Amino acid sequence: MRDRNLALLLGEIARRGPMTRARLAEVTGLTKTTVSTLVAVLADIGLVRADGRVHEGERGRPGVAVAINRDGPAGLGLEVNVDYLAACVLDLGRRVRYRDLVHADNRSRPVEEVLAELGAVAERALNAARQQGLAVKGAMVALPGVLDHRLLRTAPNLGWSDLPIADLLDAHLPALPRPTGLDNEANLAALAELWFGGGAALGDFVYVSGEIGIGAGIVVSGRLFRGAHGSAGELGHVPVDPAGPACSCGGRGCLEQVAGQSAILRSAGLSQDSSPEALRLLLRRLEERRPAATEAVSRAGAALGVALIGAANLLDPDTIVLGGLFSTLAPWIRRPVQAALGTASGRLRATAPEVTASALGEDAAVLGAAGAVIERLITDPGALLAARIA
Amino acid sequence: MRDRNLALLLGEIARRGPMTRARLAEVTGLTKTTVSTLVAVLADIGLVRADGRVHEGERGRPGVAVAINRDGPAGLGLEVNVDYLAACVLDLGRRVRYRDLVHADNRSRPVEEVLAELGAVAERALNAARQQGLAVKGAMVALPGVLDHRLLRTAPNLGWSDLPIADLLDAHLPALPRPTGLDNEANLAALAELWFGGGAALGDFVYVSGEIGIGAGIVVSGRLFRGAHGSAGELGHVPVDPAGPACSCGGRGCLEQVAGQSAILRSAGLSQDSSPEALRLLLRRLEERRPAATEAVSRAGAALGVALIGAANLLDPDTIVLGGLFSTLAPWIRRPVQAALGTASGRLRATAPEVTASALGEDAAVLGAAGAVIERLITDPGALLAARIA
Repeated sequence: MRDRNLALLLGEIARRGPMTRARLAEVTGLTKTTVSTLVAVLADIGLVRADGRVHEGERGRPGVAVAINRDGPAGLGLEVNVDYLAACVLDLGRRVRYRDLVHADNRSRPVEEVLAELGAVAERALNAARQQGLAVKGAMVALPGVLDHRLLRTAPNLGWSDLPIADLLDAHLPALPRPTGLDNEANLAALAELWFGGGAALGDFVYVSGEIGIGAGIVVSGRLFRGAHGSAGELGHVPVDPAGPACSCGGRGCLEQVAGQSAILRSAGLSQDSSPEALRLLLRRLEERRPAATEAVSRAGAALGVALIGAANLLDPDTIVLGGLFSTLAPWIRRPVQAALGTASGRLRATAPEVTASALGEDAAVLGAAGAVIERLITDPGALLAARIA
Repeated sequence: MRDRNLALLLGEIARRGPMTRARLAEVTGLTKTTVSTLVAVLADIGLVRADGRVHEGERGRPGVAVAINRDGPAGLGLEVNVDYLAACVLDLGRRVRYRDLVHADNRSRPVEEVLAELGAVAERALNAARQQGLAVKGAMVALPGVLDHRLLRTAPNLGWSDLPIADLLDAHLPALPRPTGLDNEANLAALAELWFGGGAALGDFVYVSGEIGIGAGIVVSGRLFRGAHGSAGELGHVPVDPAGPACSCGGRGCLEQVAGQSAILRSAGLSQDSSPEALRLLLRRLEERRPAATEAVSRAGAALGVALIGAANLLDPDTIVLGGLFSTLAPWIRRPVQAALGTASGRLRATAPEVTASALGEDAAVLGAAGAVIERLITDPGALLAARIA
C-alpha cells in the first residue's frame, strides 16, 4: 500500500510539475499527513526535493514546492548496434545529461570484444553522471536482436546467436547497477518516440527502426505490444519478395534484404561497409539526383511500402513512424510509402495510417533504454527504497 | 457496486458450475446475506435458478444449488457471408439450441434483399428459441467486412461499401432485440475458437478465416486485438505477390487473390461460383490426387504461408488456427504451412507458432456471434436488469 501511494505521488509530481503538499493531497486524494510522510520518504531516497517555491492560485504567499529531483537518481541507457555503440544518461526529469555514440563495425568482432568496448562506453557515462552529481540507479541495454529473457536468441546482423547475454553483460560490465535490463532496440526506440518524440498524438503506432537490420516497435494504447514470446515487430523479416533470395533468418525475400542499409548501399553502387561516410555519400548522391542512388532508395521505399501494407492490414495503427535510417531517407521515401498505403487500404478503411518521420535520430533506442530506467524508477519508487534498505 | 457483484456472482456460477449460496459466499468473499439477496435478483431476471441440489464436501445432506438457467435468457448469432446466411441460438450455458445455414450467393444481390432473407432466417431462429422456452435477450451479426461503429465501411466480396448497416438491420429485422451488435466475421470466429474450440491452450493466436474472402481474428491474452479503428486482422489483404494483379481493396497481389475460395476453384479448373458442390468437387479431386486440384491448393498454401510468416514476425503468436475453408483443406495445407513457418522463423525464435486446424466448421463466426451475446449477459447482468426496469 505504501509503495503504491509512493508511486501515485511521484507519478503526479513527474506529470504535473512542482506542487505544494496541500495540492498533492488534493490531486491524489491522500490525507495531508500521509502526503507529508511519503514526501519525506521520497526526498530521503533522493527522488524528490522540497526546497523550491511555487505559487498556486491567485493570491497569497508562495508555498514550498515538492519537485522531481533532477540532480539525484538517474538512468543509464546503452546500445549495441551493428555499426555503433551508444550511451545515454537521463535524469529523473527525463533530460539528457550525457550522450555518446561510437561508430564501430561490430559484425566481424567476437561478443567479448564488443562488450569490453561497451564496458568502456559505460564507464565514461557513469563517470560523466557522477561528475554532474547524478547517481545512476539502473541500466538498460538495447540490442539488435530477438531476446528471450536472459538469452539473446539471435542478432543475425551481428552474427550472434544463443548467447547468455545477461550473464555476459554482468561479467563484462561489473560497474553497472544490477539487474541490467535488456530489450530489443526497435522496442526501445518506439518507447523513445512515445516519451520524447511524437508522443500520445501518434495514437497506436508502428515505429520502424531502420539500421543495418530493420525492426519495428508496436505501441498499442501507450504500451509496447510484445507478442507471446517478446519477439513481435520483426518487420525486417516480413517477406516482400517470396521468390527472392534466402535471408539469414531462414526465410526468403525479407524486407531487410531489399531495404536494409547494406542492401541500399550495395544497390546504389556504394560501399556496403555501412560506415557513416558511405551513408553521407548516399545522401549527397540523392541530393544530386544520381539515378543509381535514387533508384536504390526508391526500390527500398517500395519494399518498405509492401511490408507496411501488410503491417497496416494486420495491426490497423493510427501512425507509422519512420525511424533511424528511414527518418534520414524520409525526404525520398515518406511520400511514396504514404501513397502506397493510401492506395492499398483505400477501399478497406476510411483513412490510411499517417506516415511520419521520427525526429529522434539514430540513437533513439539508447534514449528509450535510459527512459525505460526512469520510467521504472518513477512507477516503482518502492524498489529503490527496498534496495537501499537491503 | 451491486452490478459489479451481480457480475462477480454470475461469473463464478458460469465458470464453476452449480454451487450452494454458502460456497458462493466463500469463493466471492461476499457475505451470505449479500449472496442471498443478489442470487434472488439474478433468479428474478432469469439468469440463474436455485431449485437443484448439489453435494459439496464429503458428507452431509445436499444443499440447494444455484445454477445458470439454461432455459431462460438466450443469445442469437446471425451471419451474412458471401455464400451463405446463418443463425445460431445459445443458451446461458453456451449450449447450441438452434442452428441454421442457408446457402445463397449474396454477391449479386442488393443489400435490402439479403437483409430481408436474413430477417426470415432470424424469425425462424427466434421462433425455435421461443418453442424451447428460451427468451432471446440479445443479437449479434457477423459480417464479412470492415466495420466502423454503425457503418459497414466495406465488404469487398459482397460488393457493399459505406452502408449504414446498423440502421438497415434495425429496419429489416425489427424483431431483433436492440441494440443489435455488429462485428467482423473473422473476429467472431476467433472468439468462437477461444470459447468453443482450442480455448486457452491456444495461447495468443491468429485465427485464419478462409471463405470467399480471407480474414483473421487476433487473440492476445484472451481478448481480441482490434487495432486503432477496429480493422486489425485483414490477413486477406497482406501482399504475397507485390507484382500481382490489382485487388478489390485497392492493393496488389493480396493473399485473397491467390488463396481465397474462388481463386482456388478457378486455379483448379473448377467453377468459381463457390457453391457447396464446387467445393465438394475440389475435395474429391484432392482425394483422387488430381494434379490441377493439388497444385491449386498447394499454390494457395504457399501464399498463405508467406502471409503467415509476415503475421508471425509481426505478432509473435503461440498458435495459428486454420479456420473455415482452410480447416477443410487442412489435410493438404497444414503441414506445408507449418514447415514454411518453421523454416522462416527458424533462426529468429526458439519455436515457430504451432499450426492447428479449427474443429468448428464453416459457421464458426455465427457461433462466436451468439457466444458474444452470452458473454455480455454474463459479464453485465446489470444491463438486463436495467432493461427490464426501464
